[in-house]
Amino acid sequence: MELNNEIYMDNSATTKPYEEVIEAVVDIMRNYYGNPSSSHSYGLKSEKKLNESREIIARTLNCSKEEIVFTSGGSESNNFLIKGFVKRNVHIITSKIEHASVLNTFKELENQKIRVTYLDTDHKGQINLEQLSNSINKDTVLVSIMHVNNEIGTIQDINLIGKVIKEKSIRAKFHVDAIQSYGKLPIDVKKANIDLLSISGHKIHGPKGVGAAYIKKGLNPMPLIIGGGQERKLRSGTENVPAIVGLSIAAEIKHKKLKDNFNKVLALKNYFIKKLKEIEGVKINSDGDSYSPYILNVSFIGVKGEVLLHALEERNIYTSTGSACSSKLQEKSHILQAIGLKEDEIYGSIRFSFSEFNTEKEVDYVIKELKNLMTFLRRLKK
Amino acid sequence: MELNNEIYMDNSATTKPYEEVIEAVVDIMRNYYGNPSSSHSYGLKSEKKLNESREIIARTLNCSKEEIVFTSGGSESNNFLIKGFVKRNVHIITSKIEHASVLNTFKELENQKIRVTYLDTDHKGQINLEQLSNSINKDTVLVSIMHVNNEIGTIQDINLIGKVIKEKSIRAKFHVDAIQSYGKLPIDVKKANIDLLSISGHKIHGPKGVGAAYIKKGLNPMPLIIGGGQERKLRSGTENVPAIVGLSIAAEIKHKKLKDNFNKVLALKNYFIKKLKEIEGVKINSDGDSYSPYILNVSFIGVKGEVLLHALEERNIYTSTGSACSSKLQEKSHILQAIGLKEDEIYGSIRFSFSEFNTEKEVDYVIKELKNLMTFLRRLKK
Repeated sequence: MELNNEIYMDNSATTKPYEEVIEAVVDIMRNYYGNPSSSHSYGLKSEKKLNESREIIARTLNCSKEEIVFTSGGSESNNFLIKGFVKRNVHIITSKIEHASVLNTFKELENQKIRVTYLDTDHKGQINLEQLSNSINKDTVLVSIMHVNNEIGTIQDINLIGKVIKEKSIRAKFHVDAIQSYGKLPIDVKKANIDLLSISGHKIHGPKGVGAAYIKKGLNPMPLIIGGGQERKLRSGTENVPAIVGLSIAAEIKHKKLKDNFNKVLALKNYFIKKLKEIEGVKINSDGDSYSPYILNVSFIGVKGEVLLHALEERNIYTSTGSACSSKLQEKSHILQAIGLKEDEIYGSIRFSFSEFNTEKEVDYVIKELKNLMTFLRRLKK
Repeated sequence: MELNNEIYMDNSATTKPYEEVIEAVVDIMRNYYGNPSSSHSYGLKSEKKLNESREIIARTLNCSKEEIVFTSGGSESNNFLIKGFVKRNVHIITSKIEHASVLNTFKELENQKIRVTYLDTDHKGQINLEQLSNSINKDTVLVSIMHVNNEIGTIQDINLIGKVIKEKSIRAKFHVDAIQSYGKLPIDVKKANIDLLSISGHKIHGPKGVGAAYIKKGLNPMPLIIGGGQERKLRSGTENVPAIVGLSIAAEIKHKKLKDNFNKVLALKNYFIKKLKEIEGVKINSDGDSYSPYILNVSFIGVKGEVLLHALEERNIYTSTGSACSSKLQEKSHILQAIGLKEDEIYGSIRFSFSEFNTEKEVDYVIKELKNLMTFLRRLKK
């Protein structure tokens, strides 16, 4: 399977690992395979790699390395950081447009009689800060809000949200699912009053099967995985050193180029939108400053997203109808419903998600194919 | 860090990945990076790799591929399979010599008012089948017994244990922590009446950060990680395809050579033991058919294990004083206590753990160095 001449615009589902990441994974697998918990030098050498990686991740978030715990990925980080603070009789808050690993965790906790508030969002996917403030009570232990939405790309104002939470409560912890924003948008956990944050490796050209959790100093979530006491007893299991090092390398590359990539991808997205507007019956669901440049959600009215996806695929263009996680389950996107899209808009929606490797030339090709396809598919329907 | 001229006898802590495994991980990272949950062909190609791996693992255990769920490793598998069946008012059983990821999970559940029975073992680490049978009651939902002990290598008779459990209860599930036995000893989940089983990649020259859980058809543990519904909704999170494929390749190699390796390593262990007996004040803690050939636990009376470990390390010999997981915590081995070793026997214990790559020549060198060291260290003490 070669990527040459193939246009991959599904980078919010997963990304191609950087060559630097692949090389690091190989190097660690081959030459630093010791168990970081072993007392001998093989172990210590692996532990050193682990701590270097921890320091790199900490630097990107403006926290200290003791505040970083490595996990098996974004879903584990979200599960761990949310469940880790839930005891009987507490109250927790999230929004209606969170990723399944947050939303389904909240639903599960709700089934266990935990009180839950699901914040509404406006048509742009923004939560209402007044509703947030009013929802926080003396029992609220956690507010979980994603930084960038995975389907439509809405950027929540985490600095403002953190401020609202801290003004209202000294007990409520602020958890940010940063899986779609980390390495793409600047994050400063101190500035935003973030207590807990989740990141994932494979969304930033790092390895699959690895993620991290930022846990503000002094906080002690209950571990999800209990055992040998690794990661300050917060996450047991032999540390996945190759993938952790790979994650740190991806994070480093991403943060060095963060601003350049942001501008490059933003220009690409705007170019894409300009061209899309030439096509009839197209509704852009993520246009403007309040959306991540990396995500472009579009409704093609009168066409089924799934059909369009496969037609594009035949032309070597890889996209998504929603998040990868739920695309196989064929459920109607809870996010597109929450922002109030109409039935036919949900029905015909496609997510293009970019990396710094996408080009205008690719967009030109996609637009050309889209124009042909739309004419064909709409004619077919009549 | 080169392994040439270095003698790695800490294979129960972790192993060096096979070159075939490393190459597969690279190939998948580079050429099959799609998200298996994506609807397009990139996703489908990854999903195909995933299912091929699942089939390979299933074949090694004599189960069907629908009964295999991939996880981030042995600790997660153990946590998931145990906690997945625990509700209020149930009773669960384990032994006193389990790995920390089982034992500490049981202790945590006990703190949450779950009734727990910890079975005693004899001086060889064998559980008592009568005590097991007597402990099972109408509320017992789970019996968790490790196949091969990680510190002393005791092999439990899982066929017999499975029989005892099933004779006594139709409700009690039999969970086997097979992390130290998988790929080294034959396992047939049907023959042994096993309902749940945990395996780990990095103990069999596979990748770190990956493991599997066998879950007998019809059983539905609560997931530990909730989200996008991957792995039949039992384990959410984007599947770690490179590591999963790497695990399946390691499993395949291990099982092809299982018998040959077993005999080879057994001969090596017996040779080692014969030579060790030439040294004064040495007690072999894992000699005989009821122990895995891969693990040799020895007490060097009058010498501190930790000191000996570092002295051996200076001579390029890598061993362990116990399990890697707890070696940094400097706790006294609960396993050596449970089998009734005396204080000075625990104090002076070293675990040599083998792979098929260890040789008699290496053993000769280790014995030579041990003889010198023991003379020196004991003289030092006087």
